Amino acid sequence: MKLNTIFQVLVPKDNKFISLFEKGAINLVKTSELLKELVLVSDDIEKRNSMIKGIKEFEKCGDEVTHTIFDELNKTFITPFDRDDIQSLTSSIDDVVDGINSACKKIKLYNPKKLSPEFTKMADYIYEASVEINRAIADLKNIKNSPKIHEACININTIENLADDLNHQYLSNLFEYEKDAIELIKMKEIMQNLERAVDCAENVSDVLKAIIIKNA
Amino acid sequence: MKLNTIFQVLVPKDNKFISLFEKGAINLVKTSELLKELVLVSDDIEKRNSMIKGIKEFEKCGDEVTHTIFDELNKTFITPFDRDDIQSLTSSIDDVVDGINSACKKIKLYNPKKLSPEFTKMADYIYEASVEINRAIADLKNIKNSPKIHEACININTIENLADDLNHQYLSNLFEYEKDAIELIKMKEIMQNLERAVDCAENVSDVLKAIIIKNA
Amino acid sequence: MKLNTIFQVLVPKDNKFISLFEKGAINLVKTSELLKELVLVSDDIEKRNSMIKGIKEFEKCGDEVTHTIFDELNKTFITPFDRDDIQSLTSSIDDVVDGINSACKKIKLYNPKKLSPEFTKMADYIYEASVEINRAIADLKNIKNSPKIHEACININTIENLADDLNHQYLSNLFEYEKDAIELIKMKEIMQNLERAVDCAENVSDVLKAIIIKNA
Repeated sequence: MKLNTIFQVLVPKDNKFISLFEKGAINLVKTSELLKELVLVSDDIEKRNSMIKGIKEFEKCGDEVTHTIFDELNKTFITPFDRDDIQSLTSSIDDVVDGINSACKKIKLYNPKKLSPEFTKMADYIYEASVEINRAIADLKNIKNSPKIHEACININTIENLADDLNHQYLSNLFEYEKDAIELIKMKEIMQNLERAVDCAENVSDVLKAIIIKNA
Repeated sequence: MKLNTIFQVLVPKDNKFISLFEKGAINLVKTSELLKELVLVSDDIEKRNSMIKGIKEFEKCGDEVTHTIFDELNKTFITPFDRDDIQSLTSSIDDVVDGINSACKKIKLYNPKKLSPEFTKMADYIYEASVEINRAIADLKNIKNSPKIHEACININTIENLADDLNHQYLSNLFEYEKDAIELIKMKEIMQNLERAVDCAENVSDVLKAIIIKNA
Repeated sequence: MKLNTIFQVLVPKDNKFISLFEKGAINLVKTSELLKELVLVSDDIEKRNSMIKGIKEFEKCGDEVTHTIFDELNKTFITPFDRDDIQSLTSSIDDVVDGINSACKKIKLYNPKKLSPEFTKMADYIYEASVEINRAIADLKNIKNSPKIHEACININTIENLADDLNHQYLSNLFEYEKDAIELIKMKEIMQNLERAVDCAENVSDVLKAIIIKNA
């Protein structure tokens, strides 16, 4: 048993780190909510671009939370979990927001004519995974919640599998039916960027699983 | 001299880890054998897709070997080489199989009209590199075999250089002669995925070289 | 205070490592100088290909410097900065040269008809960032120069932001006006490779910033 682990037992878990994780997770939910709206207004370029700006703002907000957590980590002697886990959890949540932002940057740059219903579906998956992450983070306060956290992780994995299938189905159709090569490039890359955001959500789930195993 | 190193001298090398590495390496050879067949039947979509399923099965099998080795590593006090090297060797072999599987997934998704002879050549290189890996792994049993392992590593590096040249030559021709942009995208990505599998084989060779230097 | 840090205070900074860093940085400046020329002669294929060969030579030279530094590191007990920082600085400088070489390999393979003025601009940014890196490395000799190093880092960050904007503007125009999908693929990838070289220059700046903070 490491010294930090011994101290952790004595320290209440509802501390500043949990609050900061919650801040990051809520920011992620807001980001994916806006993404859901964005893919629906794909024919109104002006509205779309203003939403992309909004997502960029959420991305900056996520960066701030990340920096605050890393600063706190440098100032704090006893942490609620291992330092590495706090870092991984922070970065992995931030990566989902970054992933959404990257996809949106491509939407702005490539300016696709229309985003098909598969993009709406993929944005739904990202939103659902974000909600599960947010739920799991809220449950981190009490280690007795670990079965609930575990359940959220299973849900995220299920969502990732569905997103993977959707991406494959979409790509396969795209290569079969889209005859405009430039539109194909646009769609393929935007969809891949969105799918990568779901992969990032799965990374959050992996970090959460590792944390509950260690702290069980 | 680290404690583990002292014990290693006293422990026979033909243990469960070597057997598991062999299992992984044989699985790799089988995967690349099937890939060789697959690129040849490129005009029979049904046959091709059934072979892609077969490669997916090999990929799962490789994952199982990897998990077994990692589990054993957690249970084992004295290991035949450094833990990090066992992990790297395991992961690097798995990466070659994953690389082949990724390329095949793209073949299924993109459904190219025909795979040109360069794909047959690239599949040959992957197969040859896999055979060298398998040979080197079999020789790991006895540290006296290190010159033979070293020779296998040199052969893998030569194969990687040839694969690199082939990929460049192919890409250059593709951009000169292929006028269908969508077919170009398909071919370019599938070839790059195959070439990356050869890069992964070179990573195995790098790990093997590090192991024989440390244990010489 | 770590033992190495105590010794570092007693050891003059103008040692073999600084000379090797300078060698690497000068090689980088030469590479980016040649890149600047290369993008200007984009219509003379023969001349262009001979310049690409020249860049390949610089890349090999950079590799040699890297290997020499890593060898010295293994032989040296007391280093002017932390070993990890020496490794990171070495690798990050090498990555810029590698990035330029990768972009040039793509120019050779894809053989684009013409490189537009945006490529000249991007090559200028890479050159400017390289000059700043070279300046900062020369200033590493004396820790009193840290404000000058810091200034160079700020300049590199500014250049990276400009390069990012240029890449975005270029991509956006490309997807709006380029109707030849194959030319679009060529341009998009070459520009992205060049932009990545600027990202690598920013990594050098991050390593330099970390070094001056630790050694201040």
